[in-house]
Amino acid sequence: MTRLAIFGYGNLSRGVECAIRQNPDLELAAVFTRRDPARVQILTPGVPVLPAEAAASKKEEIDVLIVCGGSATDLPRLTPALARDFNVIDSFDTHASIPAHFAAVDQAARESGHIAFISVGWDPGLFSVNRLYASAVLPEGSDYTFWGRGVSQGHSDAVRRIPGVLDARQYTIPVPEALERVRRGENPQLTTREKHTRLCYVVAEDGADKAAIERAIVTMPNYFSDYDTTVEFISQEEMARDHAGLPHGGSVIRSGVTGWDKECRETIEYKLTLDSNPQFTASVLAACARAAARMRARGVTGCQTIFDIAPADLSPLGREALLAHML
Amino acid sequence: MTRLAIFGYGNLSRGVECAIRQNPDLELAAVFTRRDPARVQILTPGVPVLPAEAAASKKEEIDVLIVCGGSATDLPRLTPALARDFNVIDSFDTHASIPAHFAAVDQAARESGHIAFISVGWDPGLFSVNRLYASAVLPEGSDYTFWGRGVSQGHSDAVRRIPGVLDARQYTIPVPEALERVRRGENPQLTTREKHTRLCYVVAEDGADKAAIERAIVTMPNYFSDYDTTVEFISQEEMARDHAGLPHGGSVIRSGVTGWDKECRETIEYKLTLDSNPQFTASVLAACARAAARMRARGVTGCQTIFDIAPADLSPLGREALLAHML
Repeated sequence: MTRLAIFGYGNLSRGVECAIRQNPDLELAAVFTRRDPARVQILTPGVPVLPAEAAASKKEEIDVLIVCGGSATDLPRLTPALARDFNVIDSFDTHASIPAHFAAVDQAARESGHIAFISVGWDPGLFSVNRLYASAVLPEGSDYTFWGRGVSQGHSDAVRRIPGVLDARQYTIPVPEALERVRRGENPQLTTREKHTRLCYVVAEDGADKAAIERAIVTMPNYFSDYDTTVEFISQEEMARDHAGLPHGGSVIRSGVTGWDKECRETIEYKLTLDSNPQFTASVLAACARAAARMRARGVTGCQTIFDIAPADLSPLGREALLAHML
Repeated sequence: MTRLAIFGYGNLSRGVECAIRQNPDLELAAVFTRRDPARVQILTPGVPVLPAEAAASKKEEIDVLIVCGGSATDLPRLTPALARDFNVIDSFDTHASIPAHFAAVDQAARESGHIAFISVGWDPGLFSVNRLYASAVLPEGSDYTFWGRGVSQGHSDAVRRIPGVLDARQYTIPVPEALERVRRGENPQLTTREKHTRLCYVVAEDGADKAAIERAIVTMPNYFSDYDTTVEFISQEEMARDHAGLPHGGSVIRSGVTGWDKECRETIEYKLTLDSNPQFTASVLAACARAAARMRARGVTGCQTIFDIAPADLSPLGREALLAHML
């Protein structure tokens, strides 16, 4: 039995609880929160909810701590700090800051003799693994990553910060023609605008200047100005009824050439279609937590990524079952 | 530089030569053949073609030997024998016999202190890895593997053995409706007949009884009787013009549920579209040969599979580049 604990409680943590429930070899030992534990209602019966400060005192009872928090400010601070007392795993997803986060976590984990995994989920995570397999197998080729159709929480938050906006949900949508050209192996050069469109559902305050809101969205630098963006104003009721979920997904595609004269084309696509981004991310975290416990038991310490996990370590099945049924 | 050699020369070996040429950190040191070396024309200039009996005398100059041969009779004999002198890798693909082949190769490799990889390619191989990742992440779900559209060499050979048949090419084709139902997450129960159809192009001898040939094909047990099979008679010229390639591919799909009440559906698809089955299989062999050399250098011995390779070991890139550009 691998004893897991969760640090920080929100959507992703609830997903981790659900994933642990689906894996008989994993158990949830505790949830730590920086809020008042009495006000945190978790899903799993009988599991203690404890204040964050109590975590270190429980370290002997926990094999791997899953650190749930935002990549902007929470994880860069929390994961290295917690790696001093625990084997840790997080879903840090700011691609550009991964090397710095890796270095900080690696130093803490090496000094304390723990194993740590950062950037576990689907992108970074399973998408990254598939980029790696595909580029190793097809050295001469081009990579494409398409996201969606799905809700981008960062873009939704950016729209919500516009004056006059009560609520917003932003969908990232791959351009079908671009996706088809890549799938056909054309290896096109695609601009940002040619790859994805953005669709915003917005609930405006009564009397708000909708034209001004729309202008503020479509011209927003970094978030929207490089895309063709559509804005639709809907009611609070429509938002609650039609946009309560957090679906997402996308495709990693590599198309490359083989043969002495590069006469053959080979295309690899890895595609996710997800009803729930946080539930799926949590499911990847749970499988990688299993691997983390096994690798630590073999003496591995320091910061690792999903690139360092031999697939066999992710599975509850033993070698014989894997050879007989999965290979 | 990782020094590779090839044992046995055919379509797959030519693919290995092409793959080595695309990877600057791999070099081809020798080709060993059981035929007369003078009659074996390889692609790579300057590489010696040597008789099979000479292999052992070259073992100090070879990091990994890629064993190319049929799974029915060649590999079960060759891979364990060669593992006594070499780190070896093969593409053994008779799924039901993998445990026995593993055991034989493992014993030889452990006794001699070598590393050995069996069943490397795409199925078994990359498809297997994706079955494993998907089932580890989505423990409650169903797996589907669809093959094609592509040429099955075993089925083509079976048709060629029918009296009156001069040449034949068999295409395995997924049933589009079945594929769509699986992609939609319906998790249908599908019979063999409902998943794939088979299409045979046949060149018959002059005056052959075509109706008898067609009957012999569609009623052939194991190969065709469980499928809806279409037979088309074509000329020798049409065969050469339209069916010279060995395209293949397919999809591994897992659809599963997440959430406390299993209220979310998540679907993972891994899809290959290949102009050349042997070229692509050889490309996977080359990447795994790189991993084999690295793992052996770290002290790993015995039989391994693609499940035991941490993805990072497949890539020519170092950790910093992987973190910065691939994760």
